Amino acid sequence: MLLIRGGTVVTAETSQSSDVLCDDEGKISAVGHNLEAPSGCTILDAGGLLVMPGGIDPHTHMEMPFMGSIASDDFYTGTSAGVAGGTTTIIDFVIPERGTSLLDAWKEWRRKGEKAVSDYSFHVAVTHWDEKVHEDMATLTRECGVNSFKHFMAYKNALMVDDDVLLRSISRALELGALCNVHAENGDAVAYLQADLLKRGMTGPEAHPLSRPASVEGEAAQRVIAIAGLLGAPIYIVHVSTEEATAAIAAARARGQRVYGEVLAQHLVIDDSVYADPNWLGAAQHVMSPPFRPKRHQKALWAGLASGQLQTTATDHCCFCAGQKEQGLNDFTKIPNGTPGIEDRMSVLWHHGVRSGRLTPQEFVAVTSTNTAKIFNIHPRKGSVSAGADADLVLWDPAASRTVSAATHHQNVDYNIYEGMTLTGLARYTISSGKIVWANGDLRVTRGAGKYVERPCFSPDMQATMQRKNLS
Amino acid sequence: MLLIRGGTVVTAETSQSSDVLCDDEGKISAVGHNLEAPSGCTILDAGGLLVMPGGIDPHTHMEMPFMGSIASDDFYTGTSAGVAGGTTTIIDFVIPERGTSLLDAWKEWRRKGEKAVSDYSFHVAVTHWDEKVHEDMATLTRECGVNSFKHFMAYKNALMVDDDVLLRSISRALELGALCNVHAENGDAVAYLQADLLKRGMTGPEAHPLSRPASVEGEAAQRVIAIAGLLGAPIYIVHVSTEEATAAIAAARARGQRVYGEVLAQHLVIDDSVYADPNWLGAAQHVMSPPFRPKRHQKALWAGLASGQLQTTATDHCCFCAGQKEQGLNDFTKIPNGTPGIEDRMSVLWHHGVRSGRLTPQEFVAVTSTNTAKIFNIHPRKGSVSAGADADLVLWDPAASRTVSAATHHQNVDYNIYEGMTLTGLARYTISSGKIVWANGDLRVTRGAGKYVERPCFSPDMQATMQRKNLS
Amino acid sequence: MLLIRGGTVVTAETSQSSDVLCDDEGKISAVGHNLEAPSGCTILDAGGLLVMPGGIDPHTHMEMPFMGSIASDDFYTGTSAGVAGGTTTIIDFVIPERGTSLLDAWKEWRRKGEKAVSDYSFHVAVTHWDEKVHEDMATLTRECGVNSFKHFMAYKNALMVDDDVLLRSISRALELGALCNVHAENGDAVAYLQADLLKRGMTGPEAHPLSRPASVEGEAAQRVIAIAGLLGAPIYIVHVSTEEATAAIAAARARGQRVYGEVLAQHLVIDDSVYADPNWLGAAQHVMSPPFRPKRHQKALWAGLASGQLQTTATDHCCFCAGQKEQGLNDFTKIPNGTPGIEDRMSVLWHHGVRSGRLTPQEFVAVTSTNTAKIFNIHPRKGSVSAGADADLVLWDPAASRTVSAATHHQNVDYNIYEGMTLTGLARYTISSGKIVWANGDLRVTRGAGKYVERPCFSPDMQATMQRKNLS
Amino acid sequence: MLLIRGGTVVTAETSQSSDVLCDDEGKISAVGHNLEAPSGCTILDAGGLLVMPGGIDPHTHMEMPFMGSIASDDFYTGTSAGVAGGTTTIIDFVIPERGTSLLDAWKEWRRKGEKAVSDYSFHVAVTHWDEKVHEDMATLTRECGVNSFKHFMAYKNALMVDDDVLLRSISRALELGALCNVHAENGDAVAYLQADLLKRGMTGPEAHPLSRPASVEGEAAQRVIAIAGLLGAPIYIVHVSTEEATAAIAAARARGQRVYGEVLAQHLVIDDSVYADPNWLGAAQHVMSPPFRPKRHQKALWAGLASGQLQTTATDHCCFCAGQKEQGLNDFTKIPNGTPGIEDRMSVLWHHGVRSGRLTPQEFVAVTSTNTAKIFNIHPRKGSVSAGADADLVLWDPAASRTVSAATHHQNVDYNIYEGMTLTGLARYTISSGKIVWANGDLRVTRGAGKYVERPCFSPDMQATMQRKNLS
Repeated sequence: MLLIRGGTVVTAETSQSSDVLCDDEGKISAVGHNLEAPSGCTILDAGGLLVMPGGIDPHTHMEMPFMGSIASDDFYTGTSAGVAGGTTTIIDFVIPERGTSLLDAWKEWRRKGEKAVSDYSFHVAVTHWDEKVHEDMATLTRECGVNSFKHFMAYKNALMVDDDVLLRSISRALELGALCNVHAENGDAVAYLQADLLKRGMTGPEAHPLSRPASVEGEAAQRVIAIAGLLGAPIYIVHVSTEEATAAIAAARARGQRVYGEVLAQHLVIDDSVYADPNWLGAAQHVMSPPFRPKRHQKALWAGLASGQLQTTATDHCCFCAGQKEQGLNDFTKIPNGTPGIEDRMSVLWHHGVRSGRLTPQEFVAVTSTNTAKIFNIHPRKGSVSAGADADLVLWDPAASRTVSAATHHQNVDYNIYEGMTLTGLARYTISSGKIVWANGDLRVTRGAGKYVERPCFSPDMQATMQRKNLS
Repeated sequence: MLLIRGGTVVTAETSQSSDVLCDDEGKISAVGHNLEAPSGCTILDAGGLLVMPGGIDPHTHMEMPFMGSIASDDFYTGTSAGVAGGTTTIIDFVIPERGTSLLDAWKEWRRKGEKAVSDYSFHVAVTHWDEKVHEDMATLTRECGVNSFKHFMAYKNALMVDDDVLLRSISRALELGALCNVHAENGDAVAYLQADLLKRGMTGPEAHPLSRPASVEGEAAQRVIAIAGLLGAPIYIVHVSTEEATAAIAAARARGQRVYGEVLAQHLVIDDSVYADPNWLGAAQHVMSPPFRPKRHQKALWAGLASGQLQTTATDHCCFCAGQKEQGLNDFTKIPNGTPGIEDRMSVLWHHGVRSGRLTPQEFVAVTSTNTAKIFNIHPRKGSVSAGADADLVLWDPAASRTVSAATHHQNVDYNIYEGMTLTGLARYTISSGKIVWANGDLRVTRGAGKYVERPCFSPDMQATMQRKNLS
Repeated sequence: MLLIRGGTVVTAETSQSSDVLCDDEGKISAVGHNLEAPSGCTILDAGGLLVMPGGIDPHTHMEMPFMGSIASDDFYTGTSAGVAGGTTTIIDFVIPERGTSLLDAWKEWRRKGEKAVSDYSFHVAVTHWDEKVHEDMATLTRECGVNSFKHFMAYKNALMVDDDVLLRSISRALELGALCNVHAENGDAVAYLQADLLKRGMTGPEAHPLSRPASVEGEAAQRVIAIAGLLGAPIYIVHVSTEEATAAIAAARARGQRVYGEVLAQHLVIDDSVYADPNWLGAAQHVMSPPFRPKRHQKALWAGLASGQLQTTATDHCCFCAGQKEQGLNDFTKIPNGTPGIEDRMSVLWHHGVRSGRLTPQEFVAVTSTNTAKIFNIHPRKGSVSAGADADLVLWDPAASRTVSAATHHQNVDYNIYEGMTLTGLARYTISSGKIVWANGDLRVTRGAGKYVERPCFSPDMQATMQRKNLS
Repeated sequence: MLLIRGGTVVTAETSQSSDVLCDDEGKISAVGHNLEAPSGCTILDAGGLLVMPGGIDPHTHMEMPFMGSIASDDFYTGTSAGVAGGTTTIIDFVIPERGTSLLDAWKEWRRKGEKAVSDYSFHVAVTHWDEKVHEDMATLTRECGVNSFKHFMAYKNALMVDDDVLLRSISRALELGALCNVHAENGDAVAYLQADLLKRGMTGPEAHPLSRPASVEGEAAQRVIAIAGLLGAPIYIVHVSTEEATAAIAAARARGQRVYGEVLAQHLVIDDSVYADPNWLGAAQHVMSPPFRPKRHQKALWAGLASGQLQTTATDHCCFCAGQKEQGLNDFTKIPNGTPGIEDRMSVLWHHGVRSGRLTPQEFVAVTSTNTAKIFNIHPRKGSVSAGADADLVLWDPAASRTVSAATHHQNVDYNIYEGMTLTGLARYTISSGKIVWANGDLRVTRGAGKYVERPCFSPDMQATMQRKNLS
C-alpha cells in the first residue's frame, strides 16, 4: 500500500489538498483529507507537489516496422521513457500490412507489448478493405478490447486508404460502437509533390515540408469530417498540426458533429525553421508527417486546446537513429518519418502551456490524460484520481526545472528533439499500478509489469451519437 | 445525516454506481461503494435514479423592479420553484439604479435574498461609471463575496452603458480578479427600431422581435468580445440566443481568448412563431430580450453546448403576470420583458438534450451546474458530487415523464412558457444542504434556509488570464 | 446591314441610349448616338427595349450519350431554343469515353455541332490519364481552339477521375494556359450512399437528393480548390448549388486564389421539394446532379452572384424525355441525370434577379454573358456591345411577361422545368451574327448557321496567374 | 482636338488596340481603329503605351483643418501632384465642424476647390445630428451634386458620431438615394488606449499603432455593417486596412448585403515596422489612422481587391510637414494624422499589383478608377474610355521605371512615404478634359481648370437596393 500525503490533487475539474491511498492491487482506494496510513503502508510525502493522473499518450509507435526500418524504442524502453516523464499509459498502433489479417497483426503486437513497464493499449489500423476486415473488426471489438480503428489518408501505395474504404470502415466501426482515427493528409497530393520536388532536384529534408503543405492536411481533415458527417459517426483526427485542420474541426463541432482533434507536443513548440538546418542530419531528425509548420499554426493549436476544440495531446513517438534516418540521404522521401517525444510531452505542456497562462492546471490534466481516457472510454479507470481508479499517478513539481538532452534521456534514440530546452515543471515521482517507478530521477521499472488495457466500445459519446442517429 | 444509497452518481466527468453520505452541516462527507449508514442516519433509496449535483441557475431576477413593475417571483417562491425542478442554487442580479451606490444596492438585495429556501449569490450590475463605482467594485469583491459584474448594452436611457464604461469596468474587474457579464444587444439600434415600428403603427408584441433582430445581438457580442480582447480580459455573455453570437464566441475562443456563453433553456426549444399568436397575452407572455428566434438559431445553440463553445444554461427567470404584461397593451415597448423558467430548465435540458442524443448525461451535468460553478469559482463546493462539497443534489429519474402546466407549477406567475409540453426526465428528490426539500412532488422547503454564497475572485481561469497578460 | 435604333444599350459596365450598327460579316461596326443608316440597311426599332449582349451558356450537353440514353436536344434544336430565349452562344462538352482519344472525341463533337443555328464552342473532358491525354491536351489548345478542360469528381466507374488525375491534368492545363473545370461531388460517397439507399429499399427519385447531400458537393469543392491551390492554378467549378461550395470558393478567393463558380438558373429558383412529388415522372424529371437543394442554398447562390464570388450562370441543359427517364423506374440511380433550361435562363435571371433587386441590369449582363466571355477568353468578341464584336445581341423587353410551358417552348423535350411560371422580362428580338433569328416569337433560324468559336489560351487572368507563380 | 494614336486601350473590361479622339469640349468623341485626324488636331503617339481612364482618388483631404493644423497640399498643389501620377479626379471631403451647417461647409469647400487643376467632387461629413442636418442632406443631394455622406466612428470628442447618429444618417441617405461612407474605428476604445498608453509613459509615435489595434477597426466595421444591414442600406467603408474588416465585408456580401471597401495604396505595401524607426520624425511621418499594420493584413487586402470584395483604391492624401508633425513631439496623440500619396498611387498599384501578377491590367483599371466611378455614380462619364465620356486619360508606360523621392515629387510636403522605392509603370502623359497636363515629366496644369463634378443620387446599385427593400 502507498499513501501519498500532503499533496495537492489536481484533476481536470479541480485542485484540492488531499491524500491518496493506493492498495496492493494497483488501485486507488481512497482520496481524502488526512487519510490514515494502514499498517505497513509506504508513505510518500507530496508536500509542494501536484498529484495528478499519470499521463496518457494516445499516439505512439514502439518498435514499428516503417519505411524499411524499425522504430528504435521498443515497448520496454519506450514505456520506461514515458514513466520518466510522468506518462503511465500509451495507446500504440497495430498496423497490419495491406491485405493481411487485422487479428493476426493484433496478436503480433500483443506479443511485442508484453515487455512494457506500464500499461498499454492498441488502436488497430485498417489499411485495406474486404470481408475479412469487416469480420475482424467485430472480433477485435468484442473479444480483444479494441474500440478504435486507425486510417491513413496519406502514404500512397503503402498504408493509404481511399474514400471508399473510409466510408466502409467508419460505418462498420459505428455499428460496433468503436471510434475511427484518421491521419489526415491527401496522399495523392503528397506523392505528386514529392515526385515533382525530386524531379526538380530537391532531394534534401528541406523539401519534406514542401511536399506536405498545410492545405494538404486541411483538405484531408475537411474530407474525412464530411465523410463521417454523412454517416453520422464521430471521428478523431490524429496529430492536427495546422490552423486549417483546427478550423475544420471547430466548424464541424459548431454544426453539432462530434469531431475530436489530437495535437502533438512537438508541433506546439517547434516550427518549420528546423528544415533550414544546414546539417543534413539535424534537418532529417525533424522529418515526420505532418511536418513542422510555420509559427501561425502553433497559435491556432494552443487556442484549440484552450477552447476545447482540440482535446488531447500526444507524441506520435516514433524513433529512428542517425543510421536509420540516413536511408534517405539522397532522397528525402526515404527518410523514415518520425520523432521521439514521449518523455518530454508533459513538461512541454506544463512549461509552455500552464506557465505561460495558456492553460490552467486543470486544463493541463484534461489534455494530458483525462480527455483521452474519456474519448477512448477508459475513464475513470484512467485519467482520474478517484477511489477505484488505477493507481497511475504523477507527482508533479511545478517549480523545478530541467534541461532536456539526449545525453540524459531514457528514450532509445540518439537525439532529442527538444535538446537544450529548459523546462520548468517535471515529474518528481511516477506511480504505475500503485508502484513507485520513477523517484527523483531514479527509474525503477520492471520489464513486463505493464498490463494490456482493454477498452470497451460504446463510450458515452458513442451512445449519444447512436441515439441521435436513430432519432434523425 | 442522509445516506443516498443505490443510485448512479453522474458528474460532468463520469457515471458510476455510488452511495453518497451527507452530514449534518450540509456537506457531503463521503462518496463510495456500499457506504455504511451511521446510526440515526436517514436512508434514501436512489435505485434507478441518477444522483447529480443540484442545478445552478446563473441568471435569475427575483422580485426585480423593472420597467415599472416588480417581477412576481420573490426569493422565496422563486427558489422554491427551482428546488421543485432540481435547481439548488441561483445567482441573481443586484441592479442599482443609474447613479446610485453599488454597495447599497447589494445590501438591499441581500435583504431580499434572506427569504430564499436554497442557496443564492449575486452578480452586481454596473449601470454608470464614476469614482464611487470604481471603489465599490473593490469593496464588493474583497468584502462581499462578489466576483462578477454585469453590464447591459441594451435598455437605452435605463440600464445601458456605452463602450467607454465597458472599457473601464472590464479593466477594473480584471485587476480585482472578477469576471464581467454582458447582456449583448445594441441598445441604440433597438431604440431606433422600436421608434420606427411604433411610428409605422406596429404596437403589438409581434413587433418585439422585429425591434431586436439577430444581428443586433451578434453585433453587440462581437463588440464586447473585441473590447475584452483589447484588455486581455475574459468575458461572459449572458443569454446567447443567436447563431451570430455563438459564432462570435467560437471565433474568439479559436483565437485563444477566454470567452464564455450562457444559453437559456427557453431559447433552445421555443422559436419566434410564438409572436404570431393572435391572442395578445399569449404573445406578450413571450416578450423577453433577446426575443425568441427562428429555428436555425436553436441548432447553433445546441451545437454550441455540445461542442463546449457555450458552457452554461440559465433561465433569466423573470416573471410578470397578465396584469403586468398588460402595461404594454398599446405599446409593445412597455410590456415588461421576461419569462419564467427556473422550474423546468433541468427537464427541458434532459428531454431535448440527453434523450435526443445531443448531450451525454455527463454533458448535461456540465451545462446545468458544473461549468457554472467553475466559471464563477464556487467549484467543487457547488456543481460536484464529492466529499467536502455542499450537499446540494438532485436525484433524477431519467425515465419518468410529466406534462408542464401553470396549474401545477410552483412559480408565482400565472402562465408557464412550456405549458402542455411533456418532458421525460424529472427531479424525484432534491436535496439542499443535506436536507430533502423536494420528494416525489412534495415540496418541503423552509423560508430563509438558503445561504448567501460568497464567491472568491481569482478563479483558475482568471489566474491563467492574468499570467498570460503579464507575459505578453 | 442592320441598324438597331432607339434602344438602351446595357453592358456589364453601364446603361446608355445608343444605336448599334451591324455589318454583313456578322460584326458590330458602330455603337453610338444617332448613327446614320447606310443605304440598304435594315432598321430595327428598339424603343423601350434593352440592347444587350446575347446570352452565353457555358454549360450545355446537346445530344450527349449518357447513362445509356442520348440527350434529346441536339445542336440544332438546342441552339434554336437558346436563341428563342436570348442566348446566342453555348459552350458544350466533348466527353470522350474513358480510355479513348480526346482529339477523336473532339472531332466527333465538331461534326455534331455543325447543325447549330448559333455559335458554339467546346470544353473537353479528361476522363482518364495517360501520355496520349497529355499530348492531346497540347494539340487541342494549340490547333483546335480549346482552352478549357472538364473533370468529373463524381460518376464513379464512369467519368470520375481521382485526385491524382486532377493533379496531373490541372498542372498540364496550366502550362498550356488553359483553364480546368470541375464537377465537384465526391463520387465515392455518392456511390456508397446510392448502394445504401437501394439496400434499404429506397428506389424512387426521392432518394436521389439523399444520395448527394450538400456536404458531398462542399467536400469536393474544398478538395479541388486545395489541389488547384497547390499547383498555383485557377479553377472553375461548374454548377455550384450549395452554400458550402459557395463558401469554399469565397474563402479561396479571400486567400488570393483565382477560383470561379458557375450557377445554374434552375438551382436559383427550384428547391428540393420537387422530389416529394408523388407523381414518379414529376420527381424524375428533376433528377439531375447536383440535385435541387433546400432553400437556404438559394440565398447563398444569389448573394454569391451579387457579390461577384460566383461569376457565371448556365443551365447544364441536358434533356431526357419521359421514356428516357423511365429507364430508372425501379432504380433511381438509372434515371438519366439532367434537366432542360437553355430557353428560359435569361428570363429566370431577369425576373428573379433584376426585378427582385438582387442584381442590377449591368450585373445581369455580367452573369449571363460578359463574365463567361472573359473567363473563357472570348471577350470582347462575345459578351460585349462594342465595335468589332460579334453581332450577337438580344433586344430585351424588361416589362413584358410570359408563362413558361412545354406546350410552347422550343426545346426538344416533353416537359419544362419551369412549367407554369410567369416571368417578366423576355427576348423580343435575338440577333446572331448580325441576323435577326428571333423576332417577337417568330423563330427564323438556319440549320448550320452557327460557327465554331475557337478560344485562345492565356486569358488575362491566366497570364496574371502565371506571372504570380513565376514570382513566388 | 486631340487624337491619341497607336496605343492599347485598357479598360476594366478589356484591352484592345484603339485610337482615341478627344474634342474641344473635353469629351471623348470617338474610340476606334485607325481614326482619322480632323484638321487642326493634335496627334499624340501612344505607341507602346496603355491608354486608360485617368485615375480617380475617392479619398483626399486637401487643405483640411485637422488636429490644430491645416493639410499642406491645397487643391492646386494636390491635384497637380495627382495629375503627375495619372490621377485626374479626386473626391475630397467637406468636413463641417460639429454643430455647424453642412451646407455652409460645402460652400466653403467649393471655394477652396476652385483652384484645382483637374476635376474634383465632394463627400460631405455628418459630424452631429439635428433637424438642420436632416434638411441639409436633402439640399445637398438635390441641388449640390452630393451623393455621399461620410461618418467618423473614431476621433472621440471631435468628429466621432455614435450609433444613433449612424442609424439616422444612413436611413436618411437611403431615402435620398445617397451612399454613406464610414471611417471604421471604435473611438471609445482608441481614446481609452491612448490615455492608458500616455499614463504608462508611452508618448512617442511607436505608441500610435498600439492605440489602434486591428480589432478596433474590425469591430467598427462589423458594427456599421450590422447597422446598415438593419436599414437595408448599402455602405462604403473607407481605408480598410485589416484582415478583420476585409473579412467582415466579405461575410456581409456573402449574405447578400451591398457593402463596399476602399484600400489605401499605402496600406498595401508599407507595414507597421515603420513605427520602430528610431528617428522620431520618420516614425511620426507615418502616423495616420488606421495605422500601418503587420504584413498579414497586406495579403488580405490584395486578395480583397483581386477577388472583388474590396473595390476601390485611394490615398486618404493628407499632408503635414515636419513642423506640423512636431506638434506631437511629446504626445503622439497630438501628431496630425495623415500621409501623402496621391502622386504615387497608380504606380504603386501597377508595380506591386500588376507586375506581381496579383491583378490583371483590367483589374488595375477597375480598382484605380472604374469601380469608384460606378459606386459614386459618375460612370461612364468618369472611369471609362468611351465616346461621350470626359476626356480624362492616362497614357501609361508599363515598362518604364522611376524612383520615388520627395526631392522630385509634386506634392507640397517635405517627405514622401515611398522615398527610395523604385516603381515600374508610370504616367507618360496625363490628359484632363482633353488637355495634355502632364507630358513626359513636364507639368502643364492650369490653376482653376478643374471642374466641380456633380454626382447624381440613385446609382444602379442604389436603385436595386431600394427595389429589394421594397419587396422584402
